[in-house]
Amino acid sequence: MRGWLTARFPKFSQDRLLLVVDLIGTFVFAVEGSLAGISAGLDVFGLLVLSFVTALGGGTIRDLLIGAIPPNSIRDWRYGATAFAGGGAVFFFHPLFERVPVHLMITLDAAGLALFAVAGVGKALEYGITPLLAIMMGAVTGAGGGTVRDVLLAQVPGVLHSDIYAAAALAGATVVVIGLKVKMPRAFATSLGASVCFVLRMVAAWEHWNLPKVIVR
Amino acid sequence: MRGWLTARFPKFSQDRLLLVVDLIGTFVFAVEGSLAGISAGLDVFGLLVLSFVTALGGGTIRDLLIGAIPPNSIRDWRYGATAFAGGGAVFFFHPLFERVPVHLMITLDAAGLALFAVAGVGKALEYGITPLLAIMMGAVTGAGGGTVRDVLLAQVPGVLHSDIYAAAALAGATVVVIGLKVKMPRAFATSLGASVCFVLRMVAAWEHWNLPKVIVR
Amino acid sequence: MRGWLTARFPKFSQDRLLLVVDLIGTFVFAVEGSLAGISAGLDVFGLLVLSFVTALGGGTIRDLLIGAIPPNSIRDWRYGATAFAGGGAVFFFHPLFERVPVHLMITLDAAGLALFAVAGVGKALEYGITPLLAIMMGAVTGAGGGTVRDVLLAQVPGVLHSDIYAAAALAGATVVVIGLKVKMPRAFATSLGASVCFVLRMVAAWEHWNLPKVIVR
Repeated sequence: MRGWLTARFPKFSQDRLLLVVDLIGTFVFAVEGSLAGISAGLDVFGLLVLSFVTALGGGTIRDLLIGAIPPNSIRDWRYGATAFAGGGAVFFFHPLFERVPVHLMITLDAAGLALFAVAGVGKALEYGITPLLAIMMGAVTGAGGGTVRDVLLAQVPGVLHSDIYAAAALAGATVVVIGLKVKMPRAFATSLGASVCFVLRMVAAWEHWNLPKVIVR
Repeated sequence: MRGWLTARFPKFSQDRLLLVVDLIGTFVFAVEGSLAGISAGLDVFGLLVLSFVTALGGGTIRDLLIGAIPPNSIRDWRYGATAFAGGGAVFFFHPLFERVPVHLMITLDAAGLALFAVAGVGKALEYGITPLLAIMMGAVTGAGGGTVRDVLLAQVPGVLHSDIYAAAALAGATVVVIGLKVKMPRAFATSLGASVCFVLRMVAAWEHWNLPKVIVR
Repeated sequence: MRGWLTARFPKFSQDRLLLVVDLIGTFVFAVEGSLAGISAGLDVFGLLVLSFVTALGGGTIRDLLIGAIPPNSIRDWRYGATAFAGGGAVFFFHPLFERVPVHLMITLDAAGLALFAVAGVGKALEYGITPLLAIMMGAVTGAGGGTVRDVLLAQVPGVLHSDIYAAAALAGATVVVIGLKVKMPRAFATSLGASVCFVLRMVAAWEHWNLPKVIVR
């Protein structure tokens, strides 16, 4: 049964559509990594490294941990090329990217996070990882790249102290696991999980929600 | 031949006893990681990450390096669950943990270090790693988690400049290797190595010993 | 067909010569790592860690990513022993190493970078990695160790913002890939790539070249 979109673009199989969506997420994360690199005064090589690491670091760590070696980012050149394209685009057309409204950037980032989180938990489950750690792998896929980026910039990773970001990825990945447990079709469970992650992240960004902290007197 | 403890608790095989001891070590390290996270102002997600990383980061790096993939921390959900339990306990009952006397904490930590060091060198030897690097894997297992924790907190890892900590793990792991070389029974060599590591760490903490540094004029 | 050198030293096969060159590169990088550790106030254990990480970290990351597990640094004890020898030599004979002229150090470092870059791209190609990412693996092998060293010292890795260093490794690795593509003999393509990397790095250091940055007003 073909969906409306695949029927209209018959050359796009389901898999190819997923790949395109995945590469768009990679591009968005790469742009964010590169912009962070500019703020930190990195040169063009540094921008490309931060693009790659921010976009593909989370998935790479997940793949190393679940035993999918070489990781997808090293196996398939299109991911690296897309990340470098994002970093290069920022280097050459920096003023353009600076003019992107912050709301659009947050929305695209939330979409990328949701996509990476559900893809991450799905792949971990395929590799036989238990649900608890598969959910963690969803968060690693979504938030791991930004964590490595912050470490390279010698900063405490933002995800550890501010915003609801990785927690949204955890929530989305949990929904996927529960959905599959109660025998939802995979596409449905995945879409539901991605939506939960996306909406939670957007509301949290909008409302400036933070996770609780221990108050030390 | 059953020991006194296993005879009294017949359902506890040797292996199960080792697992319980291992999980206690994991819990102790997780509590320490989480407390460090509170000092650094992390939120509850950050505490859980630091619990996992501090408790299981060393063993995970060892497993990646010796080729035991997926690492034990990802393969067996009980380790992750224990680490998260430690982190969660600190989050909910923080004042309780603050009241634990520092001497007890150092003692428990030294016991965990000794346990992780001899377990690490043993697993590396099982995977066919040469003695020199197997000893190094003992130190990585014992001190690697704290190193990653400090990196995430954007600090130079304490183990690189202060105290006798990883060096105690190296000493214990070396004793294990020599013991096995001179045909001691494995349980004996392991116990001896763990004791050397524990005692060395305790005396060093008590006497405020440090390793030598190069004095730059 | 035996070359002049191997004819004179008949016990030195081609492979053995390569190993010796590789170990010399490892020693040079280890010395640099250890000297950086002294500046940062590390103790003798910290120096040994920085020696190992600076000399062998890049190759280890490459091996993990391309699926050569356990990595060479863990499989073959001679690399670790050489790295520790470099670190130990700096600890015991620190004033000697301080007296090494900076030009000699830069030259030896550039030679090590060239060697590691072409070895890295070669090994990645052998493991079936696509050219784009194999070139990246050349840079990871050459510059990855210094990157991890800087992260452990809680600094933004120098390679991301200053000098032409990893870019020289990328250039050399690219020459290797193109050379092999146009059917050059492997030894020739490799030598040419190493020369390009070495000369580019030396000229860049001499002329204080930097890569371009985005100027933010």
